[in-house]
Amino acid sequence: MSNLEQIAKLSGFSKATVSRVLNQSRHVSQPTRDKILAIMEELDYVPNGNAISLSKGQTMQIGMVTEGINEVMLPFLNSFVETASQYGYQTIIYTSSGDPKKELQAFEDMRRKRVDALVISTCVNDLALLGSYCKYGPIVSWQRMENPQIASVAMNQYDGYTLGLEHVISRGRTRIANAYGRPSSINTLGRIEAYEDAARRHGLAELPQWSRTGIHSIRQGEELVREMLAVEDPLQRPDAVLCSNDLVAAGIVSEARRRRLRVPEDLAVVGFDNTELAHTLGITSIYNPIADQAKNAFHLLLAKLGGACEPQQKLQYCLVQRATT
Amino acid sequence: MSNLEQIAKLSGFSKATVSRVLNQSRHVSQPTRDKILAIMEELDYVPNGNAISLSKGQTMQIGMVTEGINEVMLPFLNSFVETASQYGYQTIIYTSSGDPKKELQAFEDMRRKRVDALVISTCVNDLALLGSYCKYGPIVSWQRMENPQIASVAMNQYDGYTLGLEHVISRGRTRIANAYGRPSSINTLGRIEAYEDAARRHGLAELPQWSRTGIHSIRQGEELVREMLAVEDPLQRPDAVLCSNDLVAAGIVSEARRRRLRVPEDLAVVGFDNTELAHTLGITSIYNPIADQAKNAFHLLLAKLGGACEPQQKLQYCLVQRATT
Repeated sequence: MSNLEQIAKLSGFSKATVSRVLNQSRHVSQPTRDKILAIMEELDYVPNGNAISLSKGQTMQIGMVTEGINEVMLPFLNSFVETASQYGYQTIIYTSSGDPKKELQAFEDMRRKRVDALVISTCVNDLALLGSYCKYGPIVSWQRMENPQIASVAMNQYDGYTLGLEHVISRGRTRIANAYGRPSSINTLGRIEAYEDAARRHGLAELPQWSRTGIHSIRQGEELVREMLAVEDPLQRPDAVLCSNDLVAAGIVSEARRRRLRVPEDLAVVGFDNTELAHTLGITSIYNPIADQAKNAFHLLLAKLGGACEPQQKLQYCLVQRATT
Repeated sequence: MSNLEQIAKLSGFSKATVSRVLNQSRHVSQPTRDKILAIMEELDYVPNGNAISLSKGQTMQIGMVTEGINEVMLPFLNSFVETASQYGYQTIIYTSSGDPKKELQAFEDMRRKRVDALVISTCVNDLALLGSYCKYGPIVSWQRMENPQIASVAMNQYDGYTLGLEHVISRGRTRIANAYGRPSSINTLGRIEAYEDAARRHGLAELPQWSRTGIHSIRQGEELVREMLAVEDPLQRPDAVLCSNDLVAAGIVSEARRRRLRVPEDLAVVGFDNTELAHTLGITSIYNPIADQAKNAFHLLLAKLGGACEPQQKLQYCLVQRATT
């Protein structure tokens, strides 16, 4: 006997009436409703979440697509999960470890209606391919995307990076190294443009050998210091370095300390994102309102899912100066 | 017209036959199957994931319960998500921000069959209450739990903490401060016991005023240094501090540097978990095989969910000595 039949039998009402109570229809009298609810309570009956999802056509679940979760992503993840849960949505994490096939799982799950929407933190698949999934549900990206179908909450990193560049240049630095992140990302392209514009504005010689892409970890920051020190003439070394994130800056500052390279005298260091790590290590960094970007991302999705439409918060970078500049 | 009816009509077969193909029944001839699959392909038909969950009685989703995600949890989260996905399971994050009601949402979701199982990273509700949900699905905890219904993959922190204590004592330290974590957790109780035993073993006077609970953040570590320096006589200050995690140790080391308290000469510092942060800052720490504990947690759940039963990995702490001791 199904749960519905059992409740109907015990309560003495029809299955249709029980179903109306379950679906919170108003066409049931209060005494009838009370009696049926009491019996459901007694039976410890709970409606099956999947059945509700199936009948409503929504899962109240949002997938987050990422290569892996690191310190920089934490404020985005925590803020998104928290905001979504305030609206009754849950967040499923899809980590790909950089494998395009694994990443596609998240998109296939939206196609199969296991999630209502997707938020991309980082992704590795071709954007045209990912865009083709937009017909199955809304997709929002944290990073900037050159795909008109995928909305983005990214800020223009040109602005944030320019803050760091102007800061070190104002302190007399002329040989600026750049530790950029992912080579193909629009974020990196914005930063490269910011550097080229600043160099032109201030008449600085560009140092192509010290502009690197694909640098995002502590260990890569450490390695960069060792490479700088391998140059014998200190005047040929960079006198400032701008980093893709605070992890790289942390690696640089720690290795510099171990190798007796003075920060900021010999090398000024600017991080990015202004994480707890920058505070702890006293690293000058660019405040990036990541938690608020996550809120914007959720509200974009919610509006597309037919929920309340809240205006997007206007967000701004700012420089937080500490001991490394 | 439902999808099923549409496929039946276009293929010229009955709904029952289409359904058998969908359910991968063997009682369909190959030409029939091929024809039906071709039509599904043409219609871009995908089975609804919720309908599959409903018919199979499983969601292939596991909820992770946590107050919030921090650096220390990252290896657990990443390893769990990765391992689960290898077996076709997805991980939903439930963060409570310490609110017992919000935390209960995860347990209610298991009751409603929206997740098949739960893994607890940290939790705030009463264990008896949480244990009462075991009848709805398996629950495994990262932390030790004094509830026989909730399995745990925790290691006995007594052993790990003892490694740190014996290390600083072997280096002549006698005034040991303890920055413990959550007061009521079994982890903390294990560490307190380890400290009391070591003090007794080596005839050290205990310093109750320097044994604190509820210390788990960078800023709390910084505050601890300021409190130590407020004691005028250096011989009344602790000469070593063992920390609940590497974040606290990072706060202590950074603040000590700013305040010109020499590490390790004036104060030896031992972290816990041996995270990237400990490496970056050169902090002596206790290696805690967190990623492997996450794997064990998933395999425990999988066995209870009726999947393959892999033996639990035997795990061990070890001391990683760096510049702070």
